[in-house]
Amino acid sequence: MAEIIEPRTLRGFRDSLPQTEILKLEIQRKLTRVFRSYGFVPIDTPALEYAEILLGKGGGETDKQVYRFLDHGQRDVALRFDLTVPFARFMAAHSQELYLPFKRYHMAKVWRGENTQRGRYREFIQIDFDIVGVDSPSADAEILMVMQDSMRALDIEEFCIHFSHRELFNELLQALGIGTQYLPVLRVVDKLKKIGRERVEEQLREIAGAERTREILAFIAMEGSNGATLSKLRKSLTERGAAGQTSSESKALTRLTRVLECIQACGLEGHFRLDPSITRGLDYYTGVVFETFLDLLPGIGSVCSGGRYNDLASLYTSEHLPGVGASIGLDRLVSALEDLGLGGELRTAPDVLVLYLDDSMLGQYHSLAGELRAGGLAAETYPADRKLNVQLKYAERRGIPLAVFYGEAERLKGTYNLRDLRTRENREDLSLPDLIRTAAELLKS
Amino acid sequence: MAEIIEPRTLRGFRDSLPQTEILKLEIQRKLTRVFRSYGFVPIDTPALEYAEILLGKGGGETDKQVYRFLDHGQRDVALRFDLTVPFARFMAAHSQELYLPFKRYHMAKVWRGENTQRGRYREFIQIDFDIVGVDSPSADAEILMVMQDSMRALDIEEFCIHFSHRELFNELLQALGIGTQYLPVLRVVDKLKKIGRERVEEQLREIAGAERTREILAFIAMEGSNGATLSKLRKSLTERGAAGQTSSESKALTRLTRVLECIQACGLEGHFRLDPSITRGLDYYTGVVFETFLDLLPGIGSVCSGGRYNDLASLYTSEHLPGVGASIGLDRLVSALEDLGLGGELRTAPDVLVLYLDDSMLGQYHSLAGELRAGGLAAETYPADRKLNVQLKYAERRGIPLAVFYGEAERLKGTYNLRDLRTRENREDLSLPDLIRTAAELLKS
Repeated sequence: MAEIIEPRTLRGFRDSLPQTEILKLEIQRKLTRVFRSYGFVPIDTPALEYAEILLGKGGGETDKQVYRFLDHGQRDVALRFDLTVPFARFMAAHSQELYLPFKRYHMAKVWRGENTQRGRYREFIQIDFDIVGVDSPSADAEILMVMQDSMRALDIEEFCIHFSHRELFNELLQALGIGTQYLPVLRVVDKLKKIGRERVEEQLREIAGAERTREILAFIAMEGSNGATLSKLRKSLTERGAAGQTSSESKALTRLTRVLECIQACGLEGHFRLDPSITRGLDYYTGVVFETFLDLLPGIGSVCSGGRYNDLASLYTSEHLPGVGASIGLDRLVSALEDLGLGGELRTAPDVLVLYLDDSMLGQYHSLAGELRAGGLAAETYPADRKLNVQLKYAERRGIPLAVFYGEAERLKGTYNLRDLRTRENREDLSLPDLIRTAAELLKS
Repeated sequence: MAEIIEPRTLRGFRDSLPQTEILKLEIQRKLTRVFRSYGFVPIDTPALEYAEILLGKGGGETDKQVYRFLDHGQRDVALRFDLTVPFARFMAAHSQELYLPFKRYHMAKVWRGENTQRGRYREFIQIDFDIVGVDSPSADAEILMVMQDSMRALDIEEFCIHFSHRELFNELLQALGIGTQYLPVLRVVDKLKKIGRERVEEQLREIAGAERTREILAFIAMEGSNGATLSKLRKSLTERGAAGQTSSESKALTRLTRVLECIQACGLEGHFRLDPSITRGLDYYTGVVFETFLDLLPGIGSVCSGGRYNDLASLYTSEHLPGVGASIGLDRLVSALEDLGLGGELRTAPDVLVLYLDDSMLGQYHSLAGELRAGGLAAETYPADRKLNVQLKYAERRGIPLAVFYGEAERLKGTYNLRDLRTRENREDLSLPDLIRTAAELLKS
């Protein structure tokens, strides 16, 4: 006998069992409906691309995490580590076939050889949606609308989308005379929700000194309402004549005001907070930025984040492509929904099991199951001639709620018996239409 | 300015543009409904696994095509090249958490570094469905039912599923005294639909001689009906006392008879042909085997094939797991549907474009789009303050059928104007409920 290979998976990689997979697919189905209702269209790109395409010329932090190798043709290739870079390459390659503004969503696996000790996975599903080819408050607002509709489509009611504008912060730092410290300060502020105000204060002092730290912290604090925060920011920047502007308001504030106008007009202000501490660490963003927090699970961090960028595909084309978009980590969202008790009700089993009671009636069991399906029920025939208790145990194990008894006696009478396996109640001598109707009713109960 | 990287993809890899991607997702959605209606459940497995798991100890034909490399931890890993091997590993790993019989489907990408000169792709989506843990005519029949329901769910009416049994052929060859030539003969017969009867005859003669070739060809011919083919096979094997059996019928014929009984009981015989020439080249199969042909596109070969196997996961577990399953190549199916004119009607655009006519009404455009969505319509706001003809050109380019005109004058009246962009007809002065109702009606027309 051949030696048996241990059926293990790679560290950081997981199988998705039916219960989880159904939840994942259900989330994707619901989000698809939201995306399509806003006119977004799906695309896909290869999992494997030229390493040069995915990594650019650069080195950088991500590179070490990328699955990169030489293929059969000695081509330097890599597995995609996000959906943004392939999207940029996609837009550059297909701009002639597409129309602008282009609104796409993309749900797909990405791979990163991250350290698994922090509970990170090396294969996960990203869900990205972007509007490309336009730089406008309307597009910014639409991405925010899609985010809030996405949460609601998943029956999450208690969430809050925090948003701000990267330039706003830049304007303040310039007014404070520490414009050159922009990135270091931004990176510290970005950690506010993770490490807390005190440690942020500590780290900021080292960079900006006590006085400016006080001003920065006052600036990034949220006030009692979005309107109040907006006024505070306006006042703050006007007093200092920020960004060299005198009478005219800062571009960032104008943009935020208009975005807030859309949110208010839609009656959605309860789900949005203007939060100047949101900066998104990445260099990449240049305009509005946003993160989504679940009130009941603050510890898991943002479940949907994104922002506006100046130019999506400058690595691959001279065409200027401004855009705005957001990204959802499906796996984090799945754990969140499970934690919130919103993921558990999905049944993996069909509605009805047609019991295999008489080997001579095999064809009729399949025909009956077909009739049940035509009646809108999910039905399977037990696939072998086994003892009744084995068949019922299978139904129980799978959680199938109903079973049809159809043996020689019923065949002669032309009727069916139906058992509700949850309550053990029987409905006897049903005609086929009655069987379908009764089953449908029992399933609703 | 930085040098621009050409936005190319790897040979054999393709982007999926919205029109194609929507069709692919729609096919997957329809097949999912069929699978679920039979009680199949979805799973997923990692794209990347230990090479040892995917390739076993063996060398073999496939190995050269596998994307295999050393990861960061110097692990010997590979991208999956089919969904069967990962499923075998999955069953071995999770048999304790699962129930048997286990019915799963799996739709996912696989990768093979095949020669692209024959129009082959190196990344494609497979759709597999299997019933594991039972060896019965009922399970065989159910897979065949799922296959025919899948075709019909895709609006394909003119198709035929050819099926046979691997052992049947074995029994004949043993009776002919050339049992040792089983595999070479099988491989030649397997090519019948590709290279034609004449060339098969030629090649068979070299292996089996003229007389046996005549007998083999008579044996594998389809008769006028499934019943007639069955009788011919029965007579053929009984005359020769095939497989050492005397009075009792061959196991293969008994199995086929019972499977046919299910097909007949369901009134589906028109879509099935008992075709003894179907052998499936692979060693892997041991029982019923089947292939699906489209009447209008015979040249593309089988779009859904499979069969019964003795033991799924013997490489990874001592547990005996017989099964039966089939596989659909999504990419081939997509081209087939496009060729049949069944793929083109899917609209990528939303139902309604809310035109951006007055910059001061931005919030109201978003609010209106939200109302339209709540009314069941897919709606987007044009995302920037551009000239009307630019906005209408965008709608035309995307194929958006309806546009709402809502400017200062309409705001004062509290009404909306709707234009059918296909007919250029206008409906004016509509209230919001009328707008939604009229739009829904126009979309049906």
